[in-house]
Amino acid sequence: MAKKNVFYAQSGGVTAVINASACGVIETARANKDKLGKVYAGRNGILGALTEDLIDTGKESASMIAALRSTPSGAFGSCRFKLKSLDANRREYERLIEVFKAHDIGYFFYNGGGDSADTCYKVSQLSESLGYPLQAIHIPKTIDNDLPITDCCPGFGSVAKYVAVSTLEASFDVRSMAETSTKVFVLEVMGRHAGWIAAAGALVEDHGIPVVVLFPEIAFDQKKFLARVEKLVKTHGFCTVVVSEGCHYADGRFLAEQGTRDAFGHAQLGGAAPVVANMVKEALGYKFHWAVADYLQRAARHIASATDVKQAYELGKKGVELALKGHNAVMPTIDRIGDSPYKYKIGMAPLAKVANVEKFMPRNFITKDGFGITEPCKRYLTPLIQGEDYPKYKNGLPVYATLKNLPVPKKLPAFTIK
Amino acid sequence: MAKKNVFYAQSGGVTAVINASACGVIETARANKDKLGKVYAGRNGILGALTEDLIDTGKESASMIAALRSTPSGAFGSCRFKLKSLDANRREYERLIEVFKAHDIGYFFYNGGGDSADTCYKVSQLSESLGYPLQAIHIPKTIDNDLPITDCCPGFGSVAKYVAVSTLEASFDVRSMAETSTKVFVLEVMGRHAGWIAAAGALVEDHGIPVVVLFPEIAFDQKKFLARVEKLVKTHGFCTVVVSEGCHYADGRFLAEQGTRDAFGHAQLGGAAPVVANMVKEALGYKFHWAVADYLQRAARHIASATDVKQAYELGKKGVELALKGHNAVMPTIDRIGDSPYKYKIGMAPLAKVANVEKFMPRNFITKDGFGITEPCKRYLTPLIQGEDYPKYKNGLPVYATLKNLPVPKKLPAFTIK
Repeated sequence: MAKKNVFYAQSGGVTAVINASACGVIETARANKDKLGKVYAGRNGILGALTEDLIDTGKESASMIAALRSTPSGAFGSCRFKLKSLDANRREYERLIEVFKAHDIGYFFYNGGGDSADTCYKVSQLSESLGYPLQAIHIPKTIDNDLPITDCCPGFGSVAKYVAVSTLEASFDVRSMAETSTKVFVLEVMGRHAGWIAAAGALVEDHGIPVVVLFPEIAFDQKKFLARVEKLVKTHGFCTVVVSEGCHYADGRFLAEQGTRDAFGHAQLGGAAPVVANMVKEALGYKFHWAVADYLQRAARHIASATDVKQAYELGKKGVELALKGHNAVMPTIDRIGDSPYKYKIGMAPLAKVANVEKFMPRNFITKDGFGITEPCKRYLTPLIQGEDYPKYKNGLPVYATLKNLPVPKKLPAFTIK
Repeated sequence: MAKKNVFYAQSGGVTAVINASACGVIETARANKDKLGKVYAGRNGILGALTEDLIDTGKESASMIAALRSTPSGAFGSCRFKLKSLDANRREYERLIEVFKAHDIGYFFYNGGGDSADTCYKVSQLSESLGYPLQAIHIPKTIDNDLPITDCCPGFGSVAKYVAVSTLEASFDVRSMAETSTKVFVLEVMGRHAGWIAAAGALVEDHGIPVVVLFPEIAFDQKKFLARVEKLVKTHGFCTVVVSEGCHYADGRFLAEQGTRDAFGHAQLGGAAPVVANMVKEALGYKFHWAVADYLQRAARHIASATDVKQAYELGKKGVELALKGHNAVMPTIDRIGDSPYKYKIGMAPLAKVANVEKFMPRNFITKDGFGITEPCKRYLTPLIQGEDYPKYKNGLPVYATLKNLPVPKKLPAFTIK
């Protein structure tokens, strides 16, 4: 059998370590040159496949590909674009097959979160539904940590570490100022439906920091929240609030919604922190400061978790190995064996069970009062933020890779995405 | 002559490296036990002196004091409190002398910014005006970098590094997403009157990132700003905006003012980023993300500049050495000798020339159009963010020191601050 080429693409919100997965895919494919052909990357995710805008990763040096391991963001461009079902948009699927045929692509690696797992699953069905032989493997990636089956998702450990470190540092700051100035610091973090990221802020409790966490899983109760803040400030002189962007009232209203929606139709959130801070000021009169970490948290490769970087690479590598073993419609997973010492192995899940399933914080990970995390949650989170994996620096700034991203010559007529 | 005791206090907004200065003061005092007595720290700055709430730093182990070098925040507590003039509040000055006499204090080290230099200067005059022998030395500290005479201020290099690194990382993120999603990322940074911190964001231009900086020194011109953003997005597909919290219109109105004021009467700012982001969305239709770094930037010891940490320590050390040489009413300074290779020496400035003087960005450091920084500015900034000085980590989090902060037994009746 002739060697087939490989297609790899990044999808959805990028992370500090998605390029480490890309590195794992490309290096492993290069190590298996006898079985695999060229590795093409989609420029801007699946869009690159639809528009035949392919990048020839073979034009990048081994050192550049290695540098991806410590470069945040999506080196080939990502996208927020979800394929409709085959019935609803047969034209796009037929185009994909045209492009794959034209470039002799037999392997499809899609690196993304829940929505992307759905896209990858649909593509994996092309073999059967449209008779084109293709193996589609999903490489998990999401800071939200909301994919099912896998114990954790690459991207999460690093954002968790960033949030825990930042919460610790800012809380030390507030503690210094509390006597005559700021008494409450509010940090807004990402997490639309799942509170995993916010939960990481509570890891600083063991460092003597009083923290209130506002999870999307727990309906916001203003009265209880203010009572909790007041109690902590009276006891400790200060407190820190970590609020998830997805925090909402019992009736579903977000604490702050900007009114715009992204391409998947999700509400674009932001601004819960100032809402919470002003609420505290009005009710309790405490001076406040607030921060919204936004992209800083998911791009913070400078303080990435070494565990996360390692797993991101391993899952990219494993994806290629699964393809070589003939698998289709699967996702490599992290299967935890033990907490302390932390042990895991790389497993595999069928995409049919991954696509469109969201994993929320289990109720026993959140304290009874809804404002903190329990010991089981700490045992779950702690291994994921272990270790530092510092990038190299030059002139005071990290050395992050920018690839050449040279295009593969097109062979087909243009295609317009409707 | 009998050995006199030392008083040290931290003042104003704390930084990632003010404790490194404390470390320099205490270690140098300990190394001169033959000439100096005990080192007392004021709990919450000058308030600790007024209320006789002194901390006996002698109760802390050498390793704990050494750990201060890599601990952000103010280990003894800081304050926002400015002494009035001797005429306006003789009572407070007389109380200070009472406390100093009671505890045999002959040296006063005040670690702060412009307002604190003023306090320190007033205290330095006590020898003459109230006949109490005292040497007062100001140790510079301010992330705003706005003290005169000294080439830079400890605290600034680290926040500059944090802002440059964060801008680079978030810009890589936006670049990945720009085709189908976010095209403009807005980062709000500190800097009420001086744009030094915002300027650091522009250091990423040499990494291929299109940046627009909004300085407090340049009146905000909405039309010109939007034209600039549009041009960059049309050319590069995306752009990053770094906006100083102190950015304002020609008539003095801040882009965003929360309406509250701190103890010095300064407006408490915050929220320029969402204002700018929404402005871009409304005028140009670009999808945006915004972040407000707030305390995260000044507390970010995990990514402190090694140059900054070193200078913070050296200035603390030098302060004690100046006192031992008999100086009063002075501040040790960083005197730059060369940019590349970066060379400096520690000098000295009279406090009379430091107190209440603010150093803004020189006009030739800002590009003609007002949205960027010039080569001389890059030459100035680059050495200050050099080197990484990582804290130790345990269980995924930095090991930051929390002192015992044991009180010195009181000898005087209580004192109420009016």
